[in-house]
Amino acid sequence: MKAGPSQEEIRRHNLGTLLRHVHIDGSMSRAVLADRMGLNRSTILGLVSELASAGLVREELPGDTGRAGRPSLVVRPESDQVYVLAFDVGVDRLAAARIGLGGVFLDRREETPMPPGRRGAGEVAEVLADFARQMTGTARRGTSCVGVGAAVRGMVRQPDGVVRAAHYIDWKDEEFGEDLTRRLGLGLPAAVGNEASLAALAEHLRGAGSGCQDLVYLHGDIGIGGGVVSGGQLLGGDCGYSGEIGHMLVNPRGGRPCGCGARGCLEAEAGERALLEAARRDPSATGREAVRAVVEAADRGDISARAALHDVGDWLGIGVANLVNILNPRTVVFGGTLREVFLGSAAQIRSRINSHALPASREGLRLRVGELGEDAVLIGAAELAFSTFLAGPLDTLARTGSADTTQ
Amino acid sequence: MKAGPSQEEIRRHNLGTLLRHVHIDGSMSRAVLADRMGLNRSTILGLVSELASAGLVREELPGDTGRAGRPSLVVRPESDQVYVLAFDVGVDRLAAARIGLGGVFLDRREETPMPPGRRGAGEVAEVLADFARQMTGTARRGTSCVGVGAAVRGMVRQPDGVVRAAHYIDWKDEEFGEDLTRRLGLGLPAAVGNEASLAALAEHLRGAGSGCQDLVYLHGDIGIGGGVVSGGQLLGGDCGYSGEIGHMLVNPRGGRPCGCGARGCLEAEAGERALLEAARRDPSATGREAVRAVVEAADRGDISARAALHDVGDWLGIGVANLVNILNPRTVVFGGTLREVFLGSAAQIRSRINSHALPASREGLRLRVGELGEDAVLIGAAELAFSTFLAGPLDTLARTGSADTTQ
Repeated sequence: MKAGPSQEEIRRHNLGTLLRHVHIDGSMSRAVLADRMGLNRSTILGLVSELASAGLVREELPGDTGRAGRPSLVVRPESDQVYVLAFDVGVDRLAAARIGLGGVFLDRREETPMPPGRRGAGEVAEVLADFARQMTGTARRGTSCVGVGAAVRGMVRQPDGVVRAAHYIDWKDEEFGEDLTRRLGLGLPAAVGNEASLAALAEHLRGAGSGCQDLVYLHGDIGIGGGVVSGGQLLGGDCGYSGEIGHMLVNPRGGRPCGCGARGCLEAEAGERALLEAARRDPSATGREAVRAVVEAADRGDISARAALHDVGDWLGIGVANLVNILNPRTVVFGGTLREVFLGSAAQIRSRINSHALPASREGLRLRVGELGEDAVLIGAAELAFSTFLAGPLDTLARTGSADTTQ
Repeated sequence: MKAGPSQEEIRRHNLGTLLRHVHIDGSMSRAVLADRMGLNRSTILGLVSELASAGLVREELPGDTGRAGRPSLVVRPESDQVYVLAFDVGVDRLAAARIGLGGVFLDRREETPMPPGRRGAGEVAEVLADFARQMTGTARRGTSCVGVGAAVRGMVRQPDGVVRAAHYIDWKDEEFGEDLTRRLGLGLPAAVGNEASLAALAEHLRGAGSGCQDLVYLHGDIGIGGGVVSGGQLLGGDCGYSGEIGHMLVNPRGGRPCGCGARGCLEAEAGERALLEAARRDPSATGREAVRAVVEAADRGDISARAALHDVGDWLGIGVANLVNILNPRTVVFGGTLREVFLGSAAQIRSRINSHALPASREGLRLRVGELGEDAVLIGAAELAFSTFLAGPLDTLARTGSADTTQ
C-alpha cells in the first residue's frame, strides 16, 4: 500500500484522465468533463489548455446540436497528432493498424491467408515491423507514435510479453515482445497480450460492454478464449494467463479431445471444430464463413445444423452459467465467431443459464453480441498500447520525441 | 474516471494507509513505514504524531531484537482504543466478537447449537444486538466502536446488505443489514457479506494468502463457497454475488442433486454431505468432526472412507483446475472443512489439476490450507467493518464519538 500521490502526480493523473474521457467517449464540453471528473471549471480549463498546447485536443464548435442558441465549445481529441501501432497475430492472418487518439484507424495493413505454422515468431515480428515502417512512413510530419500493442492467440506472460504457448501457430516460449520491440526500433516497448483478453478490453471500452464494470467476454476463433473485467479492470491473474475460459472442463465423462491434451474442455465441446463436425461439415474449414453457413442452414431447417447448434448452445450455456456463478457479471458478450453461434443458439444458451446459474446471480444478467467485429482484437491491442501514454500523456510525449519517425 | 484527490484527501489516505500497515502487519519502525509507503521520514513522523494524538498508535521500544545497540522505536496499533463488532450467522451457531485495531479479539460471545431454520432474520439480529450490548458494556471507558460487519451463509446484495437467499437457514429477501443497523443503534451502518467471501478476505489479509495478490479461496461449510482476490482486491461482481464456486456445474451427466435445485454442482459432488454419504456415514451429521472422522478412517485404511476422499478429491480437483484456467491465481486456499478434505485428498486434487489446468497457468500455483480456522469468518467480518474506518480514520473518530457506548 503506497502513500497518496504528490501534487505533480495528481496533475499528471488529471491530464491523463481528461484525455481518456475524450479518447474513449469522443468530444464533450468542458462542463461535462468537470462533472465527470468532479473538478471545478477553472481547473478543467487549465487542463484543457495544457493538452491543447501539446496538440492533443482542440476546442471547437460541435456539429449541429439541433437546439437554438449559441452552443458550448467541445473538447475534441486530435486523432492525427499521436497514434499507436496495433498488431494482430492470427492463425492465418497478420494484421496491423496505425490508430490515432480517439480510436480512429488512420492506416492498416494485412497479410492473409497465412498458413498455420508457416512462420516462427522472429519472422512474424519482421513482417509486422515492415508493416510498421510502411505505416509510420505515411504519417503526417510532426506526429508521434506513443505506444505499441500486439495480440497473439496464446498464453502471454506479463509483464514481459513472452509467448509461453500458442499451439495453433506452434510457438513455445518465444520472447516475442522483446523481439518486436527491437525490430521496431521506436524506443517504445511493445506490449503483448492474449487476443481474447484484448478483445474483451476493446468491447469493454468501445463496444457491447461499454459503461459496464463487470463483464465476461467469450471469444470464438479457432479456439475459445475470453477475458474478465471486474470492477472496471481487466483481470490478468498472477502472470497474465487469466481468461482461458475455453479450457474450463464441462464434460468430464466421455468428453471430446481438446487441443490442450485434455478432454471435455468447453473449446472441445463448443468450439468451431465441434460445431462443424456435429453439423456434418469439414471440421478443418474453420472461420466466420463456415460458422455462418451452419447458422443459415439451421435457419433453413437443416436437421444436422440445428442439432449441432443445440448441442453447442448447451455446452456454452453451461460454461456461461459457471462464469455467472463464479463472477456475477452484469454482461456476457459473445464475440469473434461466437457472435454467430450465439445468434443461432441463444434460446438454448439462455435455458442452460436459467437451469444452472443461481437466480440472484443471473437476474440482472444481459447477454450481448460483440459490436466491434473482426477489429475487436486490433482495437484492444491499440488500447493496451495507449494505456501507458494516457497515464501521463505529456511525459510520454516529451520522452518519445525520438519516436516521431517522420522528421 | 474521477480526477486525482485533493491535498486533504491525500493526507486522509496517508493516515489510513499508515494505520492499515500496522493494523495488518503489526508493529514496525518509521523507517519501514517510510520505505513501504514511498514517503520521506519527516512526512511519516507527522502522520505518526497525528495518529498518536488520536490514540490510535503508540511508539515504543520493540521487544527483544536479539541484536546489540539501541533499537529503533516501533509504531504499534492501540488495539484497545478503537474496535469493531463482528458477527457470524452460521447454520447452527451465532458468534460475535469485539475486535480491536490490529485484529485482536477483545471479547466474544457465542450461541451454539442453534437448530437450522429456527429463527428469522429479525430474531437473529436481536440476539446479535444483545451480544453487542454485552460486549460494548465491558469495553474500557473512552474507547470507540468504529464499524460493524456481519457474515451470512447466503447471497448478500451489495451495497445494501439484503440477504437475497440463504437456503440453509430459510431466509429470503431479508433486509438484514438495515435491521441489524437499527437494532444496534450505534449510528454506524452494519456491513453484511457472504461468509465465504469474508473468510477469503481474512485469509488474504491475515492467513494463508497473506502477501498474495491473486488468490482463490474455497470454503467448506454445510455447502461450498468461495471468494476470489485478484490484483489484491476481493471481487464482488455486479451485485456482490461473486464467488459462488460451489454451484459450478462439474458433472452435467447424472450429477447428484444440489440444494440449489440443479444437479452436478461442485457442492453436490464434493460437499460434506457427498463425502459422508460416499463414506457410508450419516450425511445429515455434517461438521468439522464428521469430516475429520472420515479423513482419520481413511488414514487407518477404511476402504469406503478412502474411496469417498478419492471421489471428492477428483471433483475438487476439476473445480480448482477450472478456476486456475479462468483466473490464473497464485494461491488456492482450502478453508473451513475443506481444510480437512484437502489434507485427506491432496494427491487426487493435484493430479486432476495437472490433467486439466493449462501448464503455464498452473506452473507457479500453490495449494494451501487455511490458517485461521473457524475464526476466519469473524476475522473477515471485522476487516469488512474496519475498511471504512481505515479509509479516513480521523474523520470516522470525529463522527463516531457518539458510538462510544461507555460514556
